[in-house]
Amino acid sequence: MFPKNTWYVAARSEEVEAKPLGRQICGEKIAFYRGLDNKVCAVEDFCPHRGAALSLGYVEAGNLVCGYHGLVMGCDGKPVSMPMQRIQGFPCIKSYPVVERYGFLWVWPGEAEKAQESLVPTFEWCDNRKWVYDGGLYHIGCDYRLMIDNLMDLTHEAYVHAGSIGQPEIDLAPVNTTTDGDMVITSRYMNNIIAPPHWQAALRANGLPDQQPVDRWQVSRFTPPSHIMIDVGVALAGKGGYEADPQYKASSTVVDFITPETETSHWYFWGMARNYKIDDAALTEAIREDQGRIFHQDLDVLEAQQRNIQSHPDRKLLMLNIDTGGVQARRIIDKMIRSEREEAMEEA
Amino acid sequence: MFPKNTWYVAARSEEVEAKPLGRQICGEKIAFYRGLDNKVCAVEDFCPHRGAALSLGYVEAGNLVCGYHGLVMGCDGKPVSMPMQRIQGFPCIKSYPVVERYGFLWVWPGEAEKAQESLVPTFEWCDNRKWVYDGGLYHIGCDYRLMIDNLMDLTHEAYVHAGSIGQPEIDLAPVNTTTDGDMVITSRYMNNIIAPPHWQAALRANGLPDQQPVDRWQVSRFTPPSHIMIDVGVALAGKGGYEADPQYKASSTVVDFITPETETSHWYFWGMARNYKIDDAALTEAIREDQGRIFHQDLDVLEAQQRNIQSHPDRKLLMLNIDTGGVQARRIIDKMIRSEREEAMEEA
Amino acid sequence: MFPKNTWYVAARSEEVEAKPLGRQICGEKIAFYRGLDNKVCAVEDFCPHRGAALSLGYVEAGNLVCGYHGLVMGCDGKPVSMPMQRIQGFPCIKSYPVVERYGFLWVWPGEAEKAQESLVPTFEWCDNRKWVYDGGLYHIGCDYRLMIDNLMDLTHEAYVHAGSIGQPEIDLAPVNTTTDGDMVITSRYMNNIIAPPHWQAALRANGLPDQQPVDRWQVSRFTPPSHIMIDVGVALAGKGGYEADPQYKASSTVVDFITPETETSHWYFWGMARNYKIDDAALTEAIREDQGRIFHQDLDVLEAQQRNIQSHPDRKLLMLNIDTGGVQARRIIDKMIRSEREEAMEEA
Repeated sequence: MFPKNTWYVAARSEEVEAKPLGRQICGEKIAFYRGLDNKVCAVEDFCPHRGAALSLGYVEAGNLVCGYHGLVMGCDGKPVSMPMQRIQGFPCIKSYPVVERYGFLWVWPGEAEKAQESLVPTFEWCDNRKWVYDGGLYHIGCDYRLMIDNLMDLTHEAYVHAGSIGQPEIDLAPVNTTTDGDMVITSRYMNNIIAPPHWQAALRANGLPDQQPVDRWQVSRFTPPSHIMIDVGVALAGKGGYEADPQYKASSTVVDFITPETETSHWYFWGMARNYKIDDAALTEAIREDQGRIFHQDLDVLEAQQRNIQSHPDRKLLMLNIDTGGVQARRIIDKMIRSEREEAMEEA
Repeated sequence: MFPKNTWYVAARSEEVEAKPLGRQICGEKIAFYRGLDNKVCAVEDFCPHRGAALSLGYVEAGNLVCGYHGLVMGCDGKPVSMPMQRIQGFPCIKSYPVVERYGFLWVWPGEAEKAQESLVPTFEWCDNRKWVYDGGLYHIGCDYRLMIDNLMDLTHEAYVHAGSIGQPEIDLAPVNTTTDGDMVITSRYMNNIIAPPHWQAALRANGLPDQQPVDRWQVSRFTPPSHIMIDVGVALAGKGGYEADPQYKASSTVVDFITPETETSHWYFWGMARNYKIDDAALTEAIREDQGRIFHQDLDVLEAQQRNIQSHPDRKLLMLNIDTGGVQARRIIDKMIRSEREEAMEEA
Repeated sequence: MFPKNTWYVAARSEEVEAKPLGRQICGEKIAFYRGLDNKVCAVEDFCPHRGAALSLGYVEAGNLVCGYHGLVMGCDGKPVSMPMQRIQGFPCIKSYPVVERYGFLWVWPGEAEKAQESLVPTFEWCDNRKWVYDGGLYHIGCDYRLMIDNLMDLTHEAYVHAGSIGQPEIDLAPVNTTTDGDMVITSRYMNNIIAPPHWQAALRANGLPDQQPVDRWQVSRFTPPSHIMIDVGVALAGKGGYEADPQYKASSTVVDFITPETETSHWYFWGMARNYKIDDAALTEAIREDQGRIFHQDLDVLEAQQRNIQSHPDRKLLMLNIDTGGVQARRIIDKMIRSEREEAMEEA
């Protein structure tokens, strides 16, 4: 259950260079590659000649060449040529709107004619010289919505990530969920606490004392179909918290792009954007490694949850106040799916 | 096809210490853990909050804490608390009667109200200072009843275990099967033979000559639902065989607890109990290693048999005299399943 | 979809020596072994006693002994004996006609009474002192007919095997397909070209210059059910090509036996036969390694093609002139299947 007439992150830019990349997005098997002027293209991963996977082929003169018998496929899904063959009558394959932005390939897996580049979302850290971003990709065997639940309720940090970003005070601070159009915002503020290990390190990196009380915040922002930006940080206590002057705080944005592969698996693009010490490549690398390790702790939990839910499809799960963020996000997703269906029926 | 209102061995005691253990028994996914005073508890491995696997959590103050969002689950399947939440309206999960005896956790996967601790079986070697026990656990991809067949017909030793406990004389000695209430007994006596390698070593360990003729016995005792104790041994020929005075013999009890996981897989708790040189830890270890190696030879045979039976579900297998032990044991199991169904229908 | 009343290659001779071999051929699980005088036998891999896999047993006095309880099975599928048992009433299992020829075991997986040894095919290199053969076996997860397509259209060499036997000129040379009874022949001739690396090495091995223009040929001959012999070679340009005198050429026969395992997997016996330097064992070994490496490149392509076809069962693939060889071969296979069905209906 996922909307398809929308932009999803399909890959990190560096995943598609000279070689094509085959990846399934929202049930569609797609071959991504770089055409003329390095422009990204996306076509069905199915050669109309004999069904070979085009992603096993190579790029020549901006076109994707099938690695089995040399059919040359155009970016628009129309065969261009094939040695010694007339290709006029050859069937076309689907092509997918795809754009490259902010270090990612964004794909529109649904009806191509509805795609508009202007709908690719943007965020404060994107193409912003004051920010630096790095991250990674995990393949996770669960419904992508379980990951949305996970990130819209950071209560789990106290349990899954105890010893790094988790701390008991998370449980004691009330969580607040609001919506703003199609955006869902879940926030939690913990004042006058001692920072957990991950944030102590960040304080030190900013030249701040790490054993002094701080105000800590977590603000998760969901936007459709499944992007979640989380403002996280700590400021020396009493300096204004989230609003404190930069000299008193350490803060970042956790970047989460969650892309369905199938109904029960997804691609999780995780990362961190920050606007301090942006030229410190060693720090960037240290953060990426640390985050990669911490975020990996969610995999077992989520995959076991998926198995449990599949073996008890009838059980209703609870929807507590801490779950409101996920619940509201699912409502927006459901609305998108419904309206896609209605449009499809009207068009039929 | 397995009875559920009965006690099964779920784990060896040392498998559940500080960390909980998740294990499927008779189709039920169960989280085992140690509560107050080290007492074992067993609840469904499904957090009523969001379906997380409780076995991935931890124990605190005698309760199992969900590792995802901190729901505290009681031993009775009733939620105890959750940070910042009122848990009165939370649904309960199943809890399972479980007791610890003789180094094992015994679980009753069926209707809890029918469980009686007095029904946990006991055997001569259990809690008996004159005996020592050690063993291991194998997960096997076949119907647990194929393992019962295997152990109630030791003819296979001559083939599967040639070179250790198998010997050609096994084939020549008639097998005898009797029943005593719900117990099925299969016995085979081989007189005036030379012991096979495993028993030659046991004779030496008892200070007896290993190249002299012996009388050998194998007496398998099945009790429901799927426990099989096998008295095995050799005595110097003509000294009374099974009844011989201890000074003339080497004997042991093979201990087999066979617990269904699903219809086509089971947990096999194998081990050996003996009443000689019980303080010789090196001997205990040597026997365990030897037995582990020998019993592992059955795995391939049983899993291939399972695949063959599944691909030919219509074929009737033969029931020879050597198979009578397994056949009788299955009759008792079938009777238990039937009576569970009748009770369920009466109660409905 | 495969004919069953026909001979398939089941194994290379050296795969069945002292130990039996269990292998599935056309959906039939078969135990192959060597009986009296080393004669190969093939029976169902299912012991009629308890369903154990006979291939896990051993051979004694020319019979296959079940490794579970010692049932002795005859080559004709009739139980011979079992310790302490009367086997008169025991059910029989299927036995399969099997013959050993040219270093292979050939099995007839269908109706045994229709098998005739005279129908085992023969080829020029078979039992021919002027030729030497070596090869190997791959298990491939795709319909065996995709491999037939692959070998009846060598256009793919230019893509899958670029850098060894592929070269751009392949694409430019027209392909020609003819049939001769049940034989399908696809040929391609490339004149006055420079040989690709594999053939340069062969020219050198024959004491011929490797940088001089050559005439190259590829002649694939399909015979039912799924044997393909490919005459391949190069001759110094203008010396007669395929018909050139041996002193001017380097040539070989690629030997392909393609045996269905299931509907979506097959056994691929690949190899090379040559009639020059036949005593040069090092050359034989070098060719085998080279061919093994090159032919392995097809696996990924074919298995991805299988997945694509399975997820789009409705799509019609193209049938171009280069595909004619595969199309014709499938017609012959379809005809065999149809006639098997008609015979079965007449007999019923």
